[in-house]
Amino acid sequence: MKKSGLLNPDLCYAIARLGHTDTWAVADCGLPIPEHVEIIDLALVFGIPTFEQVLNALKPEVVVEGAVIAEGAPERIREMVDTDVEVVTHEELKAQLAECAFVIRTGETTAYANVIFKSGVAF
Amino acid sequence: MKKSGLLNPDLCYAIARLGHTDTWAVADCGLPIPEHVEIIDLALVFGIPTFEQVLNALKPEVVVEGAVIAEGAPERIREMVDTDVEVVTHEELKAQLAECAFVIRTGETTAYANVIFKSGVAF
Amino acid sequence: MKKSGLLNPDLCYAIARLGHTDTWAVADCGLPIPEHVEIIDLALVFGIPTFEQVLNALKPEVVVEGAVIAEGAPERIREMVDTDVEVVTHEELKAQLAECAFVIRTGETTAYANVIFKSGVAF
Amino acid sequence: MKKSGLLNPDLCYAIARLGHTDTWAVADCGLPIPEHVEIIDLALVFGIPTFEQVLNALKPEVVVEGAVIAEGAPERIREMVDTDVEVVTHEELKAQLAECAFVIRTGETTAYANVIFKSGVAF
Amino acid sequence: MKKSGLLNPDLCYAIARLGHTDTWAVADCGLPIPEHVEIIDLALVFGIPTFEQVLNALKPEVVVEGAVIAEGAPERIREMVDTDVEVVTHEELKAQLAECAFVIRTGETTAYANVIFKSGVAF
Amino acid sequence: MKKSGLLNPDLCYAIARLGHTDTWAVADCGLPIPEHVEIIDLALVFGIPTFEQVLNALKPEVVVEGAVIAEGAPERIREMVDTDVEVVTHEELKAQLAECAFVIRTGETTAYANVIFKSGVAF
Amino acid sequence: MKKSGLLNPDLCYAIARLGHTDTWAVADCGLPIPEHVEIIDLALVFGIPTFEQVLNALKPEVVVEGAVIAEGAPERIREMVDTDVEVVTHEELKAQLAECAFVIRTGETTAYANVIFKSGVAF
Amino acid sequence: MKKSGLLNPDLCYAIARLGHTDTWAVADCGLPIPEHVEIIDLALVFGIPTFEQVLNALKPEVVVEGAVIAEGAPERIREMVDTDVEVVTHEELKAQLAECAFVIRTGETTAYANVIFKSGVAF
Amino acid sequence: MKKSGLLNPDLCYAIARLGHTDTWAVADCGLPIPEHVEIIDLALVFGIPTFEQVLNALKPEVVVEGAVIAEGAPERIREMVDTDVEVVTHEELKAQLAECAFVIRTGETTAYANVIFKSGVAF
Amino acid sequence: MKKSGLLNPDLCYAIARLGHTDTWAVADCGLPIPEHVEIIDLALVFGIPTFEQVLNALKPEVVVEGAVIAEGAPERIREMVDTDVEVVTHEELKAQLAECAFVIRTGETTAYANVIFKSGVAF
Repeated sequence: MKKSGLLNPDLCYAIARLGHTDTWAVADCGLPIPEHVEIIDLALVFGIPTFEQVLNALKPEVVVEGAVIAEGAPERIREMVDTDVEVVTHEELKAQLAECAFVIRTGETTAYANVIFKSGVAF
Repeated sequence: MKKSGLLNPDLCYAIARLGHTDTWAVADCGLPIPEHVEIIDLALVFGIPTFEQVLNALKPEVVVEGAVIAEGAPERIREMVDTDVEVVTHEELKAQLAECAFVIRTGETTAYANVIFKSGVAF
Repeated sequence: MKKSGLLNPDLCYAIARLGHTDTWAVADCGLPIPEHVEIIDLALVFGIPTFEQVLNALKPEVVVEGAVIAEGAPERIREMVDTDVEVVTHEELKAQLAECAFVIRTGETTAYANVIFKSGVAF
Repeated sequence: MKKSGLLNPDLCYAIARLGHTDTWAVADCGLPIPEHVEIIDLALVFGIPTFEQVLNALKPEVVVEGAVIAEGAPERIREMVDTDVEVVTHEELKAQLAECAFVIRTGETTAYANVIFKSGVAF
Repeated sequence: MKKSGLLNPDLCYAIARLGHTDTWAVADCGLPIPEHVEIIDLALVFGIPTFEQVLNALKPEVVVEGAVIAEGAPERIREMVDTDVEVVTHEELKAQLAECAFVIRTGETTAYANVIFKSGVAF
Repeated sequence: MKKSGLLNPDLCYAIARLGHTDTWAVADCGLPIPEHVEIIDLALVFGIPTFEQVLNALKPEVVVEGAVIAEGAPERIREMVDTDVEVVTHEELKAQLAECAFVIRTGETTAYANVIFKSGVAF
Repeated sequence: MKKSGLLNPDLCYAIARLGHTDTWAVADCGLPIPEHVEIIDLALVFGIPTFEQVLNALKPEVVVEGAVIAEGAPERIREMVDTDVEVVTHEELKAQLAECAFVIRTGETTAYANVIFKSGVAF
Repeated sequence: MKKSGLLNPDLCYAIARLGHTDTWAVADCGLPIPEHVEIIDLALVFGIPTFEQVLNALKPEVVVEGAVIAEGAPERIREMVDTDVEVVTHEELKAQLAECAFVIRTGETTAYANVIFKSGVAF
Repeated sequence: MKKSGLLNPDLCYAIARLGHTDTWAVADCGLPIPEHVEIIDLALVFGIPTFEQVLNALKPEVVVEGAVIAEGAPERIREMVDTDVEVVTHEELKAQLAECAFVIRTGETTAYANVIFKSGVAF
Repeated sequence: MKKSGLLNPDLCYAIARLGHTDTWAVADCGLPIPEHVEIIDLALVFGIPTFEQVLNALKPEVVVEGAVIAEGAPERIREMVDTDVEVVTHEELKAQLAECAFVIRTGETTAYANVIFKSGVAF
């Protein structure tokens, strides 16, 4: 079986499919996600898994060169994002969501715990 | 949105589809699952989510009237299962897995943390 | 099997998929529903199930923060909706129907017994 | 729209597809239904719709020439079936279920409220 | 099997799916039908079945509140349509065809034997 | 459009796909047809189209080298079949039906109006 | 099997689906065909089958009331088309190709051997 | 576009998928082909394309290490097959057909012009 | 099996489907590829296979009449492209990518190693 | 995009789906692969990519606890497999291939360069 790292097949596929500048998001469990955007739904119940658990699982495996976060997002969430962060209105974030390659739905119940990441390039 | 309880759409669907005596399982992240059996894969990385988190999320929403566990399963796992438990060989458990309506894959890394539940009836 | 609450798998899935501000509707059996909108068709014959039965089944399981109803809708229907209700023309209601995540078709034969609900957020 | 009778499209399709001797069933909400058998799921919550409501909706539209019921089925259910009724073990009923063209799942919570009907011929 | 009335499963499904104001059509065998519109093709050879046979099969089962016919349509066809009939150019009829829920293709070889029906409501 | 002959696309496809010794059937509207066998359903209502209309539409376009008919089939049906006819029990006919490439369902209401044709070869 | 005429099932289906004024094309093996247009690809190698073989196979089975050909098309190709022919630029032909119900790809290697046919009506 | 050789996309795909000892066939237009076997149907009308044209198109692109032909096959067909040829009954050939990766249907009308080829290995 | 040349079935299919002026691309492993464009993903790990290996595999099998490359592309990549090359901005290249029939993803990690080829015609 | 390691989405998915004792294979480009087994086809042309390149790409990411190789396999291939190796007949290897979760097809042209790996468990 897989030796380490991400275990979720859909997530492993989606990440391997990313190209430079493609965007993807980690979302709380209440974010409205446009119908055409692929959802990788890991949400079990409120709080499981947390935004942080999902982000920490992804950080070692992806290259990012920027992130977008909504104005209401708490500092706790913002600090987890160790790349340039652009703060936009919640409406603007929802608009950019429609361009995402996929959205990972967590069980997070912190309001506005939604971050869109912009893929960097690994070479 | 959903007020409480299970958030995962595939899981909510699968449970609502269960009939009396239908079986389903909660598995660690390494259990080999027959190709024809539906897998609801919540595994993120090793340990997330745990077997216990998933089982506790399900208990309030399902009626069970028995469970099957493999000989190697640790007592910690067995104690979580508050219904009659039949202990079988690991091979027998894998054979019964093929009859399951679905298997929930967790991030659990406790060996033999695999339990097959037999649906009870709610009336 | 499922212990309580909604039994319909499609309905359980659709509700678990809702995000904050997503809309969905409960409709009488004659409402024209745009082809691209998912229909969860529980209609058996005229009157079965009623609008009220379906709404009462849903209320305990969803968070709503508003509703839209057409001008012709009878008071009896309106009173069932215990959230802010905006009254629009029947044409406007049909236009908003096109944005719904899903429509539950009942057997209701009360004219204009169609309500669009706006999802609230559970945290 | 449809002038009268059955409103459910899946149900209307399934009935129109029946041939002489084909079997179909009306089931309570807890019956385990083999994966390969088509399920027309009208179940909303416990008790809605009832076995009787569904059967009465179907009687005017289908020709039957026999029925099979399980030993435990209450007299109330049996009396609704106005054709020759063969009583079998619950196991035998479940075996015959696998041959059904489709099963209509109701919200019925009366134990053993499951009847398999054998199609007659209309000419 | 089905006791009476329409026997074609696709047709039974399509009619049960109609809502108030939805449109559908009965067409001769030569009408060009837009690719995205569902075709229920009952045409066998020229003349079988006729426009009249199909319309008479449908009349007892549907509620209509209007019809649209092309200018060239012969009186014989028009008389079969016992509801308000609007006469439009053949081009306009073809345009409205694109909005139809479905088109029933007959074997009719009478030129312009195409009628679009507007669903009424049964309550 | 097509100049003459069969108009039904599914039927035209199915016939063009036939090879020597492949079997196909023309059936009355009540014949039970195994789920895995392709059904080309031309049935509108009882009697439309008739067995004879369908058979006459097919005769000019196919090569047959034999037919199978059930014991109960009326002489009228048998006379339409101008090739060697083997008479079998109704059960045997239903068994052979499972091997058919396709079955054309007519509106015929003559009991046992079911004939299985064995394709000949056109060279 | 089929007695005579066109043998290709996809082609038989496509032609039976044509309505009056629908267009379709016979193309050489190098014509760029828009992704959304159905391709019936009979091309084996350069020259097999020829444009002429395909056109001659189709002529007995279809009604056409016009054709469109590109300026560069050789006289040899044009003469095969025994109906009114409109000559357009190659760009215009490619634009009209996008409206075709289907395109038959031959092995023809004569430049500009592409003709769009407009269906006539058979009654 | 493709510079030379086989032009048919399905055929190019099927050949690239072949492994050592996999079997495939070139058939006349009347061979009955089991439903589960992929058919690459190049048949236009009787005689187009011929068995020889198809075989000659394939020979330069595939490695074969044997062939199977039915007793009735004419010498003309057999001579085209420049590899070891095993002659079997027509029934045996049809049985082996069920194991083929794919069957290419030609327009050939020579009786028994059916050859099953066994893939060799190119290294 | 296939005697020589390209082995990848998807690639063999895609090339056989190309028409004159259709475009396709060979890309490094980081190029963002629009969701609607077919991706033939041969990337294993960084550097395997290289851009050059893929291009050399394709050159003998396709006819091209031009190429488009982004400004940043290194000379090494440009020299491999033995046809007229148009240099555009990286944004323009990404825009043209959306019109490609397919994109072959290599393991190349040379920045801007992306070339869009325009199909020529082989006759 | 992905930071390192395997780039192929299908391969990343397939590995993440493996459970303990599940088997998978790396094959040369000529191995016959049963139709029901998933093929991840990385083969470009003979020799690209090599068996070794693919195996080296996988080793860091998977846990194996055994391998099966055919008698004819050269020592060079066997040495690359740093786990217990069972040598079986080529027929036995092909039989076990049918149980594999997936087969990675390389461009390898070394005869018998086919190894089936048995997944270990990572905890």
